[in-house]
Amino acid sequence: MRSVAMRLGGLAMAAGLLCAAPALALDGLVEKKVFEMPSYTTTGGGTIKNVRIGWESYGKLNDAKDNAILVTHFFSGSSHAAGKYKAEDTATGYWDSIIGPGKPLDTDKYFIISSDTLVNLSPKDPTVVTTGPASINPDTGKPYGMSFPVVTIRDFVNVQKALLDSLGIKSLQAVMGGSMGSLQAFEWGASYPEMVRRVIAAIGGAEADPFLIGWLNLWAAPIKVDPNWQNGDYYGKEEPKAGLTEALKLVTLHARHWKWADATFGRKWAEEGKDPRLSMNNQYAIEAWLDKAAAARASVSDANHFLYLVKANQTFVTGNGGTVEEGLAKIKAPVLLIPSADDMVFPPDGNMRPLKERLEKQGLKVEYTDAITSTLGHLDGVVNIGKAGDTIAQFLTK
Amino acid sequence: MRSVAMRLGGLAMAAGLLCAAPALALDGLVEKKVFEMPSYTTTGGGTIKNVRIGWESYGKLNDAKDNAILVTHFFSGSSHAAGKYKAEDTATGYWDSIIGPGKPLDTDKYFIISSDTLVNLSPKDPTVVTTGPASINPDTGKPYGMSFPVVTIRDFVNVQKALLDSLGIKSLQAVMGGSMGSLQAFEWGASYPEMVRRVIAAIGGAEADPFLIGWLNLWAAPIKVDPNWQNGDYYGKEEPKAGLTEALKLVTLHARHWKWADATFGRKWAEEGKDPRLSMNNQYAIEAWLDKAAAARASVSDANHFLYLVKANQTFVTGNGGTVEEGLAKIKAPVLLIPSADDMVFPPDGNMRPLKERLEKQGLKVEYTDAITSTLGHLDGVVNIGKAGDTIAQFLTK
Repeated sequence: MRSVAMRLGGLAMAAGLLCAAPALALDGLVEKKVFEMPSYTTTGGGTIKNVRIGWESYGKLNDAKDNAILVTHFFSGSSHAAGKYKAEDTATGYWDSIIGPGKPLDTDKYFIISSDTLVNLSPKDPTVVTTGPASINPDTGKPYGMSFPVVTIRDFVNVQKALLDSLGIKSLQAVMGGSMGSLQAFEWGASYPEMVRRVIAAIGGAEADPFLIGWLNLWAAPIKVDPNWQNGDYYGKEEPKAGLTEALKLVTLHARHWKWADATFGRKWAEEGKDPRLSMNNQYAIEAWLDKAAAARASVSDANHFLYLVKANQTFVTGNGGTVEEGLAKIKAPVLLIPSADDMVFPPDGNMRPLKERLEKQGLKVEYTDAITSTLGHLDGVVNIGKAGDTIAQFLTK
Repeated sequence: MRSVAMRLGGLAMAAGLLCAAPALALDGLVEKKVFEMPSYTTTGGGTIKNVRIGWESYGKLNDAKDNAILVTHFFSGSSHAAGKYKAEDTATGYWDSIIGPGKPLDTDKYFIISSDTLVNLSPKDPTVVTTGPASINPDTGKPYGMSFPVVTIRDFVNVQKALLDSLGIKSLQAVMGGSMGSLQAFEWGASYPEMVRRVIAAIGGAEADPFLIGWLNLWAAPIKVDPNWQNGDYYGKEEPKAGLTEALKLVTLHARHWKWADATFGRKWAEEGKDPRLSMNNQYAIEAWLDKAAAARASVSDANHFLYLVKANQTFVTGNGGTVEEGLAKIKAPVLLIPSADDMVFPPDGNMRPLKERLEKQGLKVEYTDAITSTLGHLDGVVNIGKAGDTIAQFLTK
C-alpha cells in the first residue's frame, strides 16, 4: 500500500511517497492525494485489484499521530470537505464553515482527513479518485460495469482504515460525517471501537430504514429505464445520461424542502411568456432548475456508480450483518447527533430521535442538536452545519 | 349532452337516457354511467370532441334536486367512491367508510355523485370512462397522444358542472375530495360560489406549491426516459410500461410514510436466501412490493394520461389564472380541512395549516381536523377518512 500525492492545480503526480504527511496548511491550497491498495477483499467476498481512492487533509498530524479526525462524505460528495484546490476555485469544500484554523474542527489543533469512497458518484470529476464499475478491471482490461463486486458501507470504512494505517494513525479524535457519511461514522464506531474516541453523525441514522430502501430504489429507477444503460455495459458507447440526470434530480429534490422551493422559486415560470398551462412543454422555474442542476452533476457522474452507492446505502445496518442493536452495542464512543428537523431522507423522528434513546440506554453519552434546521431539509446538514459549530467544538473537548 | 347508463356487470350499455336518476340504493350494486358532451372547449382554448366521462351515484336525488354532494377523485382514483359494481367485487369504492346509509355522507339523506375526470389515469380499467390522450381523435381516427389539449383542474370541474346541469342539479350540499380531489373542491368553491354550500378538502391544498411542482416533474420523469414512450406516440405499439411502472412506484411511495414501511416490511429481504448484500439483483421486500403494486396499476393505466394529470396538478391554483389569494377570495362556502399530519405530498404545515388562517381572515367559517393521521402519510386521507367521520357529519349539518 502506498500513498500518491497528486497536485490537482496542474494535475501533476508525484508517485511513491510513503505515508506522506500534508505539507500545506488550510490557509494554503489543499492537495489531493491518492491511496492505493494492490487488492481489497470486500465483506461479501469479492476481490478488487488496484484499489485507488483520493484523499486530502487539513491541519497537521502531530508526532503522536493522535490528533486526527476522519470526515466521511455523503452520497454525492467527495473527500473535498474544506479549502480550495486552486486559488481560482469559486467554491470551497462542503464543510468549510466548520473546518479550518479556529473553527470547530480546528486545523491548528487537529489533523482532519477525508477520502473519496469506493464507487464514488463522480469518477469523471478530475478532483475525484475512486474505484468502481467505471474502473478498468485489470483482469479484462475493460471497465467492470455490473461485474464489480457489491460493496457496503463497511467496505468504505475498511479502505479508509487501510489509508489511516498507511499514515500510522492508530486513534481518531472523532469520525464525523453527514448523511451517507454518518453511516460510515456509525460503522467506524462499531468496527473499531478502540480507535474511535467520538462519533459525530449529521442528518443520518444507524441503518437504512425500509422507507429509505424504497426511496433509494426509486432514485435508481430512471437509470435502469434508460435504454442506454444496457445492464451497465455502456462504457465507450452512448451513456444513460437522461436516466442519470433524472436520478440526480430525485436526489436533489428529496434532499431539500418545500420551504426552500417556496423561497427560491415560488410558482414562477421557466420562461417569460411561456405559460405552463398552455403547452405540455412549458415548464415552471423549479423544473428548469432541477434539469440544469442535475445535468451539471450528471456530466461528472457515472450511472453504475450511482447504482452501487444506492446498494451500499440500502444494505446499511451498523455492524454490517446483524441487527442494528447488535451493531450499536459495539460502539463505545460518545455520540453527537445532528439532525435537521425537516429532513425527508432521514426524518429525525424515525432515525436520530429514537437512536438517541437507544444509545443512552446502552450507557453511552449522547448529545443531540437540530440547530442546523433552516429551510433546506436534508441539505441543512451540509449548508448549515456551522449552526451546530459550538456544539461540535464543545463535544470535541469532552 | 346526454347520459348513458352502462351496467358494468355485463358491460351492456343502454344509450340515450336523458338525465337518468340512479335506480339503485347503495345496499344494492353501484351502476357506472357515462356522460357525454359533443364538444368541450378547454380553459386554454383547446377543443375536445366527443367527451365521455364515467359517473356513479349513491342515494337518491330528491325532487327539489338540492340534496347532492359531489365527490371528486384523487390522482390515481376514479368515480368509484363507494359500494361495489358486482356482488363478487372484493373491494368497495375508496371512501366506502364514510358513504352509505347512516354514514357521514348519508345515502338515506344525500345524493352522492362522483365522476371520472378528464385524462383519468386508468383508461384501460373497464370500470373507468374518460377522455384523454388515449382516446380516439374523431378528426384523425387515431389516438390523440400528445396532441390532446392541456387540461386543468378547472376543466375537470367544468365537465362535472355540465354533468350536474344534465341532471338538473343547481346546488350542492358539498363538494368533497381528497388530494387532487381537494383541488377540484376548492376550484368548485371558487368557480361556482353560489352553487357550493360547503367545501370539504382532505390531504390537499389550494394550489400546487413549487416543491410539489418539482415532485410531479419527477413522477413523470421515468415515462419520458422510457424509449417506448416515443413522445407519446406509442398506441398500437409497445407501450412505455417500464417507465409507467417506475412512475407509479414513485406515486405509491410518496403517498406513504416511513411508519407504514417499518410496520409492513422492516428490512426483510424479498426472497429467503437472497441476501441483498450479495448481489445487485437481490432486493428487499419493500422493493419487490413496490414493483408488484405498481405493475398491477400500470396494467390499467396510460402513460400519456399520467403526464396530463401531472400537468393538471402542477398548474393548479384555485381560481385558475390569478393568484391563490384572488382565487380563494371567490369562495363563499364554509370549508372543512382534513389533512394528515404526516402527509409528504401536501405537508400540512405548508398547505392546510396556513390555508386555515388565510380562509378565516377572509371571513369564512373554517374547520380543521387531522384526526385521520395514522401511519400512512398522504394515504391516510383515503384509508382512514372514517376517523374524521363525525367531524364531516357535523359539518354537513351546519
